[in-house]
Amino acid sequence: MIKLYSFPGTISLAVHIALEEAGADYELVKVDFLTNEQRSPDYLAINPKSRVPALVTERGVLTEAPALMTYVAQAFPQAKLAPLDDPFAMAQVQAFNTYLCSAVHVSAAHRHRGYRWADDPVAIADMRRKAPLAVAEHFELIETEYLVGPWVMGGDYTICDPYLFTLTGWLPRDGVDMAQFPKVADHFARMGERPAVRKVLAQLAA
Amino acid sequence: MIKLYSFPGTISLAVHIALEEAGADYELVKVDFLTNEQRSPDYLAINPKSRVPALVTERGVLTEAPALMTYVAQAFPQAKLAPLDDPFAMAQVQAFNTYLCSAVHVSAAHRHRGYRWADDPVAIADMRRKAPLAVAEHFELIETEYLVGPWVMGGDYTICDPYLFTLTGWLPRDGVDMAQFPKVADHFARMGERPAVRKVLAQLAA
Repeated sequence: MIKLYSFPGTISLAVHIALEEAGADYELVKVDFLTNEQRSPDYLAINPKSRVPALVTERGVLTEAPALMTYVAQAFPQAKLAPLDDPFAMAQVQAFNTYLCSAVHVSAAHRHRGYRWADDPVAIADMRRKAPLAVAEHFELIETEYLVGPWVMGGDYTICDPYLFTLTGWLPRDGVDMAQFPKVADHFARMGERPAVRKVLAQLAA
Repeated sequence: MIKLYSFPGTISLAVHIALEEAGADYELVKVDFLTNEQRSPDYLAINPKSRVPALVTERGVLTEAPALMTYVAQAFPQAKLAPLDDPFAMAQVQAFNTYLCSAVHVSAAHRHRGYRWADDPVAIADMRRKAPLAVAEHFELIETEYLVGPWVMGGDYTICDPYLFTLTGWLPRDGVDMAQFPKVADHFARMGERPAVRKVLAQLAA
């Protein structure tokens, strides 16, 4: 059975939702960030990058959220979570998730994990100050340019949706007011109504 | 004909090489970063993120290097640049390129583009100081964990190779000594021998 190594409050939520939407048979394994378990020898043997999510499959370990999202779509084609046979549409899906991963997520990380890129307390504080501005700028682009509605890519629900939902859910801790972005807020609310999302959130709250 | 919007010294090189390896018919369009052309209204109409690469196809514009790499592989399947029909192997390819995009490229950007995440000159200076350490740590992982050899994924040349080649080529300006990473250095040299790479580099030098 597939194992998803995850921790609440991280981007692993996006993959968790995707697995649930796909109807996959999976086991959730918690990597306890509160005790730094992601840096333990046991976990480093699974993911030397000491991050979640990691997906352990019959053929081995896979990492990196955008890759896992595409993997779920490709491994469970009947769930129709991505336009697998249309290179152009698929590239739009990948581009959106890449933007979330390399721009939005990275900017958000400067608020709480500035130590990755600096050590001086002045630098850490300045990153923390600027992070909400950078995140808001990204969401402004998502609102005006990329979120077609009702789902990210338009009428079809795809692997972009749980990914956006996860990062939108971080806006309060990013110091950004979701109400500035009505389409994004609407998307967040709509996602919250999906049975798969409700099931996953209930599972994490238990 | 496909148009690749690009600028020398940026990650667009990876897509340029992939197009050449695919035998694609494409036109190279220079976006002059020296005059801030990436922020001009004309270019923002193509890519509101004001970055390169952007690929203009018959169906519209595509952005984000990892998405473009996969697009080239999928649109030119006869070039066999990725294991398109194997979800697990494809996810390994995507994971590698995602790591380059969201970790390696991001850490490198802190050396020269710290203004994205901070404003205080102390912060900018501290990011610049730490960037080589962060980049070296990523390349250490690539060297020990991910680069199978002779190509990134092993015997088959894929879209991971031009991507790694491009970021390896930045190591001198990142302040990192490539000689620390013999497998990476060997990969870089081997890439430089490929006719497609030679053609692209000659085109850019002209």
